[in-house]
Amino acid sequence: MSSKKSRSGISGFPEWTPGQRMVEQKILETIRHQFELHGFAPLETRSIEPLDVLLKKGDDKEIYLLKRLHSEDTKAGDDKFGLHFDLTVPFARYVVEFQHLLHFPFKRYQIQKVWRGERKQEGRYREFYQCDIDVIGSGALPISVDAEFPQMLHHVMSLLPIPDVVLKINNRKVLEGLYRGLGIDKIEETLRIVDKLAKIGPQKVMELLCDEIDLNESAARVCLELGQIKSTDLSFVEQVKALGVEHPVLEEGLSELSNVVAACSDLPAGSLEVDLSIARGLNYYTGTVYEGYLVGHEHIGAVCSGGRYDNLAEGGQSQLPGIGVSIGITRILGYLFGRGLLEPAKPTPVQVLVILPSEEARQECWQVATRLRRKGVSCDVHHAPQNYGKQIKAAEKRGIRFVMFMDKPHQVKDLQTGEQQEVDLENWAPEPPENDYNLKG
Amino acid sequence: MSSKKSRSGISGFPEWTPGQRMVEQKILETIRHQFELHGFAPLETRSIEPLDVLLKKGDDKEIYLLKRLHSEDTKAGDDKFGLHFDLTVPFARYVVEFQHLLHFPFKRYQIQKVWRGERKQEGRYREFYQCDIDVIGSGALPISVDAEFPQMLHHVMSLLPIPDVVLKINNRKVLEGLYRGLGIDKIEETLRIVDKLAKIGPQKVMELLCDEIDLNESAARVCLELGQIKSTDLSFVEQVKALGVEHPVLEEGLSELSNVVAACSDLPAGSLEVDLSIARGLNYYTGTVYEGYLVGHEHIGAVCSGGRYDNLAEGGQSQLPGIGVSIGITRILGYLFGRGLLEPAKPTPVQVLVILPSEEARQECWQVATRLRRKGVSCDVHHAPQNYGKQIKAAEKRGIRFVMFMDKPHQVKDLQTGEQQEVDLENWAPEPPENDYNLKG
Repeated sequence: MSSKKSRSGISGFPEWTPGQRMVEQKILETIRHQFELHGFAPLETRSIEPLDVLLKKGDDKEIYLLKRLHSEDTKAGDDKFGLHFDLTVPFARYVVEFQHLLHFPFKRYQIQKVWRGERKQEGRYREFYQCDIDVIGSGALPISVDAEFPQMLHHVMSLLPIPDVVLKINNRKVLEGLYRGLGIDKIEETLRIVDKLAKIGPQKVMELLCDEIDLNESAARVCLELGQIKSTDLSFVEQVKALGVEHPVLEEGLSELSNVVAACSDLPAGSLEVDLSIARGLNYYTGTVYEGYLVGHEHIGAVCSGGRYDNLAEGGQSQLPGIGVSIGITRILGYLFGRGLLEPAKPTPVQVLVILPSEEARQECWQVATRLRRKGVSCDVHHAPQNYGKQIKAAEKRGIRFVMFMDKPHQVKDLQTGEQQEVDLENWAPEPPENDYNLKG
Repeated sequence: MSSKKSRSGISGFPEWTPGQRMVEQKILETIRHQFELHGFAPLETRSIEPLDVLLKKGDDKEIYLLKRLHSEDTKAGDDKFGLHFDLTVPFARYVVEFQHLLHFPFKRYQIQKVWRGERKQEGRYREFYQCDIDVIGSGALPISVDAEFPQMLHHVMSLLPIPDVVLKINNRKVLEGLYRGLGIDKIEETLRIVDKLAKIGPQKVMELLCDEIDLNESAARVCLELGQIKSTDLSFVEQVKALGVEHPVLEEGLSELSNVVAACSDLPAGSLEVDLSIARGLNYYTGTVYEGYLVGHEHIGAVCSGGRYDNLAEGGQSQLPGIGVSIGITRILGYLFGRGLLEPAKPTPVQVLVILPSEEARQECWQVATRLRRKGVSCDVHHAPQNYGKQIKAAEKRGIRFVMFMDKPHQVKDLQTGEQQEVDLENWAPEPPENDYNLKG
């Protein structure tokens, strides 16, 4: 169905089938529940933000502006608002606006759609769900919070019907400190180039560093070598020190990153990896950064990501440092649905179809349905008094497992096993539904 | 907080506090669960639709178009899409697009935000949640479906922490049939005027009918008299017949409406009322129409509404008649929160705060938190090893009821009762949280 849809739909705006939506909903519900268990309060912000809020930290090419149809009065400010492109920028705005009413550290989760006017590309959508958790502190936020996120993320992702996730971790201070130690001023630009390592390869990164940042070859080589350091334990510290560069910001970054890695030592092998090439595209990160990938499917890009941003929430007297991650559930599902790796088990939540014997029996059938619903059983009464064969076939087509006949005593047929039995309406309930999905491979 | 927000926020785009969002989420969850129990499958459609889809059935003044920032290539079609203004029009488009993959009657529910560029007015929002259920049939859809909706709606609304709801019901064929019987051609325009009865009063309606539709006074009086007929049983039929107008469409409308009212006779007194002034603004309705009001708070307008639309889903070979209703949860909550009639009981889902005795104890505290979370208890470890009094105060401020001390055996203090007791971590769990809200008046 997904291929059919991409043909007839609007590029970048995915729509799932009802069965796929059931899977998505189950996943969002699992995430939501876990976020709450971990102490995060729910929040939703409006879908639009003033353009200046969006432009301060965003890539302006990606923003959708709103314009009222037939609005003659464009000067009145109809063009001043755009759809949010992430949930971190609106959250930072919300915290500054309502800081007098919040208690810090403030922990919130936010599950909403975001919009980006990006060019079509595999794994990229123009409308997609983000599931965000963030902590914002007042004044200071200890490094232990940075260490909690990989543990939470690992736990949450391991509960979802998706391939294993490896979380790659770095600290921007390690990169910035090393660059400063080498005498580089253009930190942002250097970061942006090194961040492309996985995409364009070491040769091209070297070239760009020499051409665009004006580095000599030996400095560029050190930047590149730093970006190639990986480890699953604290050994990255020695590897960085072997590069022979010193700077207080580098020291701070190594100390923070070590602290986080050490605190996460209980995570299973393969779930966390230090990767000093990770920098994150968005320019508000200032310390720890995370990028999670589906193992064996790394080519679709990061499926969860985030980091620490010490200066995003500005405007008050006290500093409001924050840290957060976002799970990109639409990218994951679009890929798994599209490749047939994840399939919904059924297209409807309905467990029981009550057979309608005649028009006169409708009220009585409704009463039976009401009794089943009170027990938490999803059910439906067939819409027309067709012959029984046709009604049973309709149940099969709709993916409903049980049909109930109005005989006294009531009879129930299990369309999966073919068995039919007398049931006592007072006590009977169908077997709980199986999994909502089948995960393959 | 709401008054503060309307001052600093963007008019028409509400934002709740985390506590309010918890209440909203609980309500949406209840609605979702009930919709599923009643046999509806979940669906989400993309937030945007092609402009021609929106314009075919919508009021074009209300539509927000999308425009990419810095898009120079406006001819390429950036202006061709708008945000959906309801969920019925996108659903009808979806059904036509995917009809070959769906089984009819197709029952779906859809809970999403919609956007309307309306002028500011009490009870009106520019971004708001709609909770929709619809059934679309292939070829025909029996009138019994029209009768199921008031019963479902009554059941669902009675489970929410809101005032009682009265559902007003009519059938457009009754209005149209009577108008035709009077020789009136301008059906839409007449409907639109009579629909204003509650707002502008009978005198003004008479004037408009005579001036704008060119009716003579006696015909206008009959239209007005029809609009003033109300009943809680089948007596409306005699009242309509007493007007002395005859037309086959009128007969059909009276028969359908009687059928629905008779099938709903088990509903409690006061929950359903025939009101022949109800016409609904949207022009796609063709039969039964519903409008629900909060009893005692009718001035905020309808809080749920819908009806039958026999011609909305077009484009295929077979007719796809539909019927549905929408619950306007944002209008209800905006009013109840704004007037202090509904208040969140607490600002966080967290039940237990684990006291952090020292930096060294953090890992151990995390382990305790993990054990509680496995039992479904929402908990948090305090972020810094401050003195106990400060940590307990932080719990109180955050609205957390229990604090846990890391002594062996563990001690738990109930901040509501002041009691402190030794607990066995293996077996202890806090009392289940009370209501998430307080409903007043």
